[in-house]
Amino acid sequence: MVLEEELDLTKNLIDKELHNLFEGKFGYQDRIFESIKYSLFTGGKRIRPILLLKICELFRGNYHTAMPFALAIEMIHTYSLIHDDLPAMDDDDFRRGKLTNHKVFGEAIAILSGDGLLNLAFETMLDYSLKNSNTLDEYKRNIRAAYEIARYAGIFGMIGGQVVDLLSNEINMDNDKLMYMYEAKTAALIQASVVAGTILGEGDEDDIQRMREFGLYLGLAYQIRDDILDEKEDRLVDKVTYLSFNKLDKAKKMVNHLSQKAFEILNYYEDRDVEFLTKLVEFLVHRDY
Amino acid sequence: MVLEEELDLTKNLIDKELHNLFEGKFGYQDRIFESIKYSLFTGGKRIRPILLLKICELFRGNYHTAMPFALAIEMIHTYSLIHDDLPAMDDDDFRRGKLTNHKVFGEAIAILSGDGLLNLAFETMLDYSLKNSNTLDEYKRNIRAAYEIARYAGIFGMIGGQVVDLLSNEINMDNDKLMYMYEAKTAALIQASVVAGTILGEGDEDDIQRMREFGLYLGLAYQIRDDILDEKEDRLVDKVTYLSFNKLDKAKKMVNHLSQKAFEILNYYEDRDVEFLTKLVEFLVHRDY
Repeated sequence: MVLEEELDLTKNLIDKELHNLFEGKFGYQDRIFESIKYSLFTGGKRIRPILLLKICELFRGNYHTAMPFALAIEMIHTYSLIHDDLPAMDDDDFRRGKLTNHKVFGEAIAILSGDGLLNLAFETMLDYSLKNSNTLDEYKRNIRAAYEIARYAGIFGMIGGQVVDLLSNEINMDNDKLMYMYEAKTAALIQASVVAGTILGEGDEDDIQRMREFGLYLGLAYQIRDDILDEKEDRLVDKVTYLSFNKLDKAKKMVNHLSQKAFEILNYYEDRDVEFLTKLVEFLVHRDY
Repeated sequence: MVLEEELDLTKNLIDKELHNLFEGKFGYQDRIFESIKYSLFTGGKRIRPILLLKICELFRGNYHTAMPFALAIEMIHTYSLIHDDLPAMDDDDFRRGKLTNHKVFGEAIAILSGDGLLNLAFETMLDYSLKNSNTLDEYKRNIRAAYEIARYAGIFGMIGGQVVDLLSNEINMDNDKLMYMYEAKTAALIQASVVAGTILGEGDEDDIQRMREFGLYLGLAYQIRDDILDEKEDRLVDKVTYLSFNKLDKAKKMVNHLSQKAFEILNYYEDRDVEFLTKLVEFLVHRDY
């Protein structure tokens, strides 16, 4: 298996389904459909939905039942980027080499597009759950997956982390608070993806707990790896990162330690096909771009 | 029954439950809890959650199972006001005589507080549905109610209406587009409330359809009544309203016509206790403040 090929294949499936959401939809509010599609299709790697689908596949053998939840995770990720880029937040003009949403559509439409995407994520999960749950167990799985995603995305998860990020500076920040911020801001949506994937894949309570930890290790490793890659840039703008409190060598060791813990959890499932997931984790924590 | 007493009693119950959501919650992200509570408790009349509870009661005799959905509707209404007031949107400094959220907490926290409230609305409904659905039918009712709320709140409902409002001016607006905007922007959340209330109250498909229409009539009557009350103010700022395309006399007739249609639907249930709902509709469409 070539990782890039499998990533592309899954990404294309996700992109097709994301397109389908807006197929034949038009009305007086067309401008928000345009704006949402603009941001959904600006070259995202679809890491979170791919993780959700592939973890579901690990447990269930396929990911047919997980697609609406994968789309929801990507919509939530995209809305958070649109709002993050706003002038009142990070004030970014470019993302992935393209103009940010508010630079193209204006701030008001950017705010409403973010709101619309977050709302659409839940509409999509609820609509699917309503139409595709034939037994009490199916309902429970679908609603539990949606709830986990909601919880990790909200004020006790990702949004909570963004608040801490926003209000933090070199003076009021310390390593504990930074680790909370990384857990909430970065790891939470990755945990949401793998936990929802496990639930939808009919994993048991132990599997769910294992994957909750796997997501945390992966998310933190990914974020600290990011700090290492962006070290020079971040120092120029006085950004508080893991490297503000820890030496480079310590940071590298931490990335290795965290990814080791993630691999250990994958190894627990070595009698199944974990090749793709193992390669994906390697790719995410050892990427050099 | 004195309407004001019954409104107060129900409002107090709702407020207590809204407070409970944040009871014992603290963390590095405390600031967003403060900000959300500030906006949740700035004197809202709780019309939408009261409608949801009271419609549920009409069908089921009580509203025990509907409270989390009522809270969700109020959270969605409140988030939409926080985002509406932002400088990039309506740029309002005051709401109900108090400083708007972004004037107190800053724009960034206001954006995140809106996001957080919208997310929390779904967390609340999903959490309840997960813990309190013992039969397949209960699951279906809870998830269908949550889905209706999501749909009416999103880009095909309230947010869609906000987009039209934002992009409209005297030149590109006409009466049809205005009526779409009123339906989406104002009536949608009222429809969401009464439809969710009917579903949770175990009304049948005919009841749901009737209440969907009831919500539309009530929402439109409420909005046009608003236009009549604010006529002078709106003319000063060249706001496009129902009165831009229709004479005052026609507007008053339309409010009467719509409220008559709403009353007809309530009369269909005259063998039940519709006194409160009848008085509430009268209060909403004949209010003179």
